[in-house]
Amino acid sequence: MDSSTERIVRRRAFIGGAVVAGSALAASTAARAASPLPARPQEQGAPLSPYGSRSTYESKVVRVPTELTPTQITSWDFTPLQDLHGTLTPNGLFFERNHGGVPNIDPAAHRLLVHGLVDNPRVFTMDDLKRYPPVTVVHFLECSGNGLTEWAKPTEPTVQKTHGLIGCAEWTGVRVSTLLKDLGVKTTTGWVLAEGADAAVMDRSIPLDKMMDDAILAYAQNGEALRPEQGYPLRLLLPGFEGNMNIKWLRRLKVGTEPSYTREETSKYTDLLPSGTARMFTFVMEAKSVITRPSGGMQISKKGEMPVTGLAWSGRGKITRVEVSADAGRTWNTAQLTEPVQSKALTRFVYPWKWNGEEVVLQSRAYDETGYVQPSLADLVKVRGLASVYHLNAIQSWHVASDGTVTNVHA
Amino acid sequence: MDSSTERIVRRRAFIGGAVVAGSALAASTAARAASPLPARPQEQGAPLSPYGSRSTYESKVVRVPTELTPTQITSWDFTPLQDLHGTLTPNGLFFERNHGGVPNIDPAAHRLLVHGLVDNPRVFTMDDLKRYPPVTVVHFLECSGNGLTEWAKPTEPTVQKTHGLIGCAEWTGVRVSTLLKDLGVKTTTGWVLAEGADAAVMDRSIPLDKMMDDAILAYAQNGEALRPEQGYPLRLLLPGFEGNMNIKWLRRLKVGTEPSYTREETSKYTDLLPSGTARMFTFVMEAKSVITRPSGGMQISKKGEMPVTGLAWSGRGKITRVEVSADAGRTWNTAQLTEPVQSKALTRFVYPWKWNGEEVVLQSRAYDETGYVQPSLADLVKVRGLASVYHLNAIQSWHVASDGTVTNVHA
Repeated sequence: MDSSTERIVRRRAFIGGAVVAGSALAASTAARAASPLPARPQEQGAPLSPYGSRSTYESKVVRVPTELTPTQITSWDFTPLQDLHGTLTPNGLFFERNHGGVPNIDPAAHRLLVHGLVDNPRVFTMDDLKRYPPVTVVHFLECSGNGLTEWAKPTEPTVQKTHGLIGCAEWTGVRVSTLLKDLGVKTTTGWVLAEGADAAVMDRSIPLDKMMDDAILAYAQNGEALRPEQGYPLRLLLPGFEGNMNIKWLRRLKVGTEPSYTREETSKYTDLLPSGTARMFTFVMEAKSVITRPSGGMQISKKGEMPVTGLAWSGRGKITRVEVSADAGRTWNTAQLTEPVQSKALTRFVYPWKWNGEEVVLQSRAYDETGYVQPSLADLVKVRGLASVYHLNAIQSWHVASDGTVTNVHA
Repeated sequence: MDSSTERIVRRRAFIGGAVVAGSALAASTAARAASPLPARPQEQGAPLSPYGSRSTYESKVVRVPTELTPTQITSWDFTPLQDLHGTLTPNGLFFERNHGGVPNIDPAAHRLLVHGLVDNPRVFTMDDLKRYPPVTVVHFLECSGNGLTEWAKPTEPTVQKTHGLIGCAEWTGVRVSTLLKDLGVKTTTGWVLAEGADAAVMDRSIPLDKMMDDAILAYAQNGEALRPEQGYPLRLLLPGFEGNMNIKWLRRLKVGTEPSYTREETSKYTDLLPSGTARMFTFVMEAKSVITRPSGGMQISKKGEMPVTGLAWSGRGKITRVEVSADAGRTWNTAQLTEPVQSKALTRFVYPWKWNGEEVVLQSRAYDETGYVQPSLADLVKVRGLASVYHLNAIQSWHVASDGTVTNVHA
């Protein structure tokens, strides 16, 4: 691997065009035979592309749908967390949850009606909305049903299926407070009905104080326009609140005094408790974390360095600490957090672990700035029972067998 | 637009399946006729997708190639800054610069040789590299030729062509310092030759101190594996240094004592000065900013609120201030910066301006944490002359005519 010799060979080849001198070619071939590196490419690569695509070698990294629904029109799919890096979720892999399929909306024809208790009700075009100063924020979005298969027993084999109803993005849009103040909102308490332009006309009631706090009308995600499945051309973003309230394809906001008790907040998206009553309006996604590597379905190939990495988040603010246990929770080690830690955003943690070849159970535990600590599954079930569907935020356990195989366990 | 009536209509339609009661249908149609909103969709939307794509309405937002090269194999294309939001550049729209086309590399076959002045030279597989603790950082990448058409006169009509050889992403990989320390680097000063596996065998000499400071071997961009045109499966990332040094498809690092004086740092990527000598090894991209909206080729449709927004960056650290002028630089106004401002990363600024319908010249000016102030074009040309190609970081001027038309000017 003599750099200067190689450069000479290369330059001769260049000067000679397609006709390579025999001696130079022989030298090059000899160098390559002795080299542990693959041969350099001999052909030019592909040209520029208007909008790029992934390597063909990455084609298995995809969203995977649930098997619990009869059709993909009213269904959900999961982000492949085990294959992702950092804190952001690529738009093409951001989990989907559709109640009536993904509409194909012309942004020039789209309108947002804002009415009810405002002095000046108004119908906005997308251009109108872009006349307000844009704000850019980084936040996660999590479906409240994330992990719903995991209450009673470990069910799904991979972190994609146990935790993949989450994503994190940089969002750009207009603060709802800017818009409502501009229209003259007539109340300081109350509720806002948000309605989507999908075939399901998905709608939810949002407390006005949330709307006036950090809610955003988002038209861009990770730098570009929203993708169709994320609400193109406009969605509501309620940082830290359960995913279904972040109404996509947003067409209407109505300011009122009471919640509307829509189907999605009465029949659906409530939690049946052991007492027989149900929790309603369970908005905030509490602190949670999960190890994404190593995780279920992987096999650690050999002993030695095996950094443990994963994600932590809280709907109430910043993550302040993540701990990793390699002994099923008996002892805990503080992981490193990727800076800057942002409020209500995915936080990447890394713990530089070495696997010694023995059987272990790996866990992670998140703390947020309110002092909340992510609970064990046993502690969560004590309070919530086993009739709940939503808001499972317990500690996840991954079992590593002595052959390196990683599986989902309750421990 | 009576919500309760509409909900009743919707529920009847749901209960009745495809057979909608005549009276309900009539009520619904009447409500729609009186509404300023487009009718709700009557058909279910599209199903889930494994890896999403953009709305068909966004198909004009693409990278555009230069017209200065005879082939797209050894060429570049520009990020559509005028259509982007926030601070991140989507992977599909991140500018490209190829010297021998985009190779299609199998990551399982790819190798990185690290040799020269190290105790333990080694050939790494991608799996080997992922055994080091991953780090995640946000940084811009800018081609040193960004703006090369604009030295003598305003040439390109849009911000895409004047400033679009830049992007910003969240990168994940391994610190070069971690790897070199692990191999036992034998010197504290010197240079590292970095070589790509493309057909051009692109190579550059990097100061060892930069490598030991914040250089990264990146395998992921914005959460997913690098795209092929960004160096899949492995690239060098040198935060703040000119783009071409961030060697893509990285196959070799050789630690030595001197620079290698490769073609790309002698014949190319140098700046001819008025004195007849040339600047070499001009690594750092100095502080720069540009207004992306409104910008060349746009037309402001009406008087009134017109937030001015754009991007600022510095290869030396954080942006501390951006100012906007609406009078060709006579007076300046401090813009708002999107938090968190990160070092050597794109920073989004917003200045809530109102256009009064008169002719104006808009400019932005960036300050960084070293105290550096982005220069005017006249001041830059005084020092650099007009024979330079690279490192044009002067203030950009956009002329707004009284009809709202925005054009590229030197002012």
